[in-house]
Amino acid sequence: MAGPTAYFDPATTNQLDERTRDLVERRSRVLGSAYRLFYEEPVQFVRGNGTKLYTADGTEYLDAYNNVPSVGHAHPRVAAAIAEQAARLTTHTRYLDRALVDYAEDLLGTFPASLGNIMFTCTGSEANDLALRIAKAATGGTGIIVTENAYHGVTTEIASISPSLGGPESLASWVRVVPAPGDGDFAADVHAALADLTASGIRPAALIVDTIFASDGVRAKVVGFADAVAAVRAAGGLFIADEVQPGFGRLGTGFWGFARHDLEPDLVSLGKPMGNGYPVAAVVARPDLVDAFGRHARYFNTFGGSSVAIAAAQATLDVVRDEELIKNARVMGDYLLAELAGIDGAIEVRGVGLFIGVRVQNEKVALDAVNALKRRRILLGESGRANDVLKIRPPLVFDREDADRLLEGISEVLS
Amino acid sequence: MAGPTAYFDPATTNQLDERTRDLVERRSRVLGSAYRLFYEEPVQFVRGNGTKLYTADGTEYLDAYNNVPSVGHAHPRVAAAIAEQAARLTTHTRYLDRALVDYAEDLLGTFPASLGNIMFTCTGSEANDLALRIAKAATGGTGIIVTENAYHGVTTEIASISPSLGGPESLASWVRVVPAPGDGDFAADVHAALADLTASGIRPAALIVDTIFASDGVRAKVVGFADAVAAVRAAGGLFIADEVQPGFGRLGTGFWGFARHDLEPDLVSLGKPMGNGYPVAAVVARPDLVDAFGRHARYFNTFGGSSVAIAAAQATLDVVRDEELIKNARVMGDYLLAELAGIDGAIEVRGVGLFIGVRVQNEKVALDAVNALKRRRILLGESGRANDVLKIRPPLVFDREDADRLLEGISEVLS
Repeated sequence: MAGPTAYFDPATTNQLDERTRDLVERRSRVLGSAYRLFYEEPVQFVRGNGTKLYTADGTEYLDAYNNVPSVGHAHPRVAAAIAEQAARLTTHTRYLDRALVDYAEDLLGTFPASLGNIMFTCTGSEANDLALRIAKAATGGTGIIVTENAYHGVTTEIASISPSLGGPESLASWVRVVPAPGDGDFAADVHAALADLTASGIRPAALIVDTIFASDGVRAKVVGFADAVAAVRAAGGLFIADEVQPGFGRLGTGFWGFARHDLEPDLVSLGKPMGNGYPVAAVVARPDLVDAFGRHARYFNTFGGSSVAIAAAQATLDVVRDEELIKNARVMGDYLLAELAGIDGAIEVRGVGLFIGVRVQNEKVALDAVNALKRRRILLGESGRANDVLKIRPPLVFDREDADRLLEGISEVLS
Repeated sequence: MAGPTAYFDPATTNQLDERTRDLVERRSRVLGSAYRLFYEEPVQFVRGNGTKLYTADGTEYLDAYNNVPSVGHAHPRVAAAIAEQAARLTTHTRYLDRALVDYAEDLLGTFPASLGNIMFTCTGSEANDLALRIAKAATGGTGIIVTENAYHGVTTEIASISPSLGGPESLASWVRVVPAPGDGDFAADVHAALADLTASGIRPAALIVDTIFASDGVRAKVVGFADAVAAVRAAGGLFIADEVQPGFGRLGTGFWGFARHDLEPDLVSLGKPMGNGYPVAAVVARPDLVDAFGRHARYFNTFGGSSVAIAAAQATLDVVRDEELIKNARVMGDYLLAELAGIDGAIEVRGVGLFIGVRVQNEKVALDAVNALKRRRILLGESGRANDVLKIRPPLVFDREDADRLLEGISEVLS
């Protein structure tokens, strides 16, 4: 685990008001000890709209944290698409479904032509898990290179390549970590990891990175990225772009984070914002890799790409385009980046579009800021190996008024 | 892979009508070669209601196969619950949510008191993956015992304990298989598998079985089950009941398949019918096991137990009770079992409630029957290691008229 974070401490339960305490205690009893709640004082929301969340008494919060409701909380077009399809039919990919094919073609149109196949899962964890299965089957290798505070998901396989999770599995023997870009020479570090795998008799299968390096504290500039990818390929491995967090326009420079780096991945994993909260995720892949996988395995995911999942995903994609949210992410991101740089206590401002990290003095300052902002009814998170980076990652409908409210809040709590 | 099944053969695409051929070709281009379509002639449904599915031209099919829409296709209460919540708020388990706690308490009330914790995932694969993570963390062991044609899911970890999948991973070195109950002496076989693990220096972590042994051809009678579980526990391992298929009342004898065998599992995985098609699944566990896991790992699943998932799951659970579907599963199951036994060509009829396997002469007879039934507008599947078992697994709202239509169809195609 990446150290303490802005979670609720169960030892302080008796400091909560009676209603909250009762609910926290009941929750803890049934969910057990592996779950966490956000914030010193946990909060329950009952309604959302755009960038705003509301508690039962009508208190409004500005959401600058949640990246899943990417086109805005409870977007009426997405909610209507889900409602209409759920009332008509929920079914799976072993029957023909024209809407699924239409969506697949539509989405693949946003990728380089080399990435011609899409396979549906329900979660980003499942997408990364499937991407690794395909990569290992296609290369015959097992070695995986990740960044040192990477988070790619929670299946057994993916937890074992996610150093930010720690835990009983720790990392698998076939995993090598490299420092986050900016903390070292990325290309040289990947070369060294490849050499180490080879020296250990492990054939490389893939380099997998979140293309905005979210859990590594948000890294928009990557020197030597193309060199690193070329080295992996020369060693027989593949490049997997984890777009679960940066994808679908958040970076304001097109749909996909890898494109900012002029790279063509071999496999891409998608997730969180794909259905604006409906569980839908996917792997986009070179067809020859899927063929190599498909020669030995069929794939079926009961809920993956169900008719309702596709309705949600298509509506979300339509809204991203119709409301020009990629442009908004760029414009609002540029504004935030410029303004944040002038705030006292913001040691380093990193990011692009609506994915921004603000490095502050230390972890305590970051955690205090997150809890202080929450008391000011602004939701934010923190990130990075040292947990000293404020993570700004709002719904893409974030507007100028939202930005000013956030900037004022951050300025206050850091001063 | 468990040999050919009643899938569409892409080599016969040019025999399809033009519209279907066009869609099949487009689909194959974007989804790639690891996906399968059901039936000699694939079918697209556009609407569902109860046990019926409809194509665009209004043709009605009787669904005796799909176990996910357990309370009936497009059940209005479940669809309304999803629509209402999606229009209001979709959020996750790091905020407080009274409805989630209410549902967790409600559902845990259907389990033995020893199973006090629930953790939410999106799919049965994720649930089994998490159950194995917990079992391995809690026992310190890695050895897993499964039945010889078991299917538990598609993550890397779970595919590696699912012999019915085959594929590049095949089985992991720490997996041992035992024959399905009825094909051998289950208790003796589990004892032997434990001895083999021990001889290989592998500490047992768990015996995991689908409590209706669906992919093993449906096995309702298990001699020596309690003895097998006791042996696993004596060796330091746990018993995981995979209730993804039998659970939520399908067997007509209460909510859970393990209860028919007077067993108390250590971990239980839930999935498919939990939200009647909405992606929601879970692990139910002894709290001390979750504590052992939680000491080293936190758990978060972005979409798992989201507010909409909980709304869908609560509505589904309410309908199971309000419409007395467990009783219906028992009554209709008893009727089908009695009538099927008298059909020529039904060599052996196995099962309980609305989970029934009909063993026929061989695989060809089974596949031909499935395709012939589909031409008669009845949906059915097949199962078993030899692929010679017709699998009857309809929505639980299956009524007497549905049963008679199915019986007549099976009788016709087997004669």
